[in-house]
Amino acid sequence: MPSLQRHVFVCVNERPADNPKGCCKSKGGVEVRDQLKVELNKRGLAKLIRANNAGCLDQCESGVVIVVYPEQVWYGNVKPEDITEIVEKHLIGGEAVARLMLPKQPHLGERVVFPALELDVASK
Amino acid sequence: MPSLQRHVFVCVNERPADNPKGCCKSKGGVEVRDQLKVELNKRGLAKLIRANNAGCLDQCESGVVIVVYPEQVWYGNVKPEDITEIVEKHLIGGEAVARLMLPKQPHLGERVVFPALELDVASK
Repeated sequence: MPSLQRHVFVCVNERPADNPKGCCKSKGGVEVRDQLKVELNKRGLAKLIRANNAGCLDQCESGVVIVVYPEQVWYGNVKPEDITEIVEKHLIGGEAVARLMLPKQPHLGERVVFPALELDVASK
Repeated sequence: MPSLQRHVFVCVNERPADNPKGCCKSKGGVEVRDQLKVELNKRGLAKLIRANNAGCLDQCESGVVIVVYPEQVWYGNVKPEDITEIVEKHLIGGEAVARLMLPKQPHLGERVVFPALELDVASK
């Protein structure tokens, strides 16, 4: 059973090319997901933090959209070159990357700092 | 921005027909997701609880697999006819459906009861 410390869902949904909102796939969703998997794998974190494809997260105009659980932090306009910062600062360090956060996340209150990754769990 | 009280990811991943583990799509992942969307929509809960497609959740042999956040409760062998119970007991009531839970979820400790849905948030 996976017992994940963080679970990251990357929208890779595709809409017709003439959809005015665009879609995460056309904006690079697959590349963002791939980069996230590469960065997690090279740090040996894939059993603690899982990167998953997701269907439409309903924020198409802000694609590529990512949501990080359990804290439910939403990121938008994510590019592959943002992934190192998301991995190191948030997924490992616990601090959300403010510059990439979508606006209005009332469920977070004022929280932008969450538990850091517990690396010693990896060897249990 | 979605500010979800629960976010449910349903694996709809497809593997080749000869894969010995099978896959959630062949086991009815799309039907389970559709049923979940129907049940949430008819209760007017779609803005509080979102049902999403997910890529492989790495539990193919137990498909259809669902994971519910923020609590990270994993369900396996889910059928469309299980969805009413999951919606009413867990997603609304807060109590996980023990008979459908995958074994060994150490991140939960002994917890099977979580906050019930706050319905009055819907009108805010």
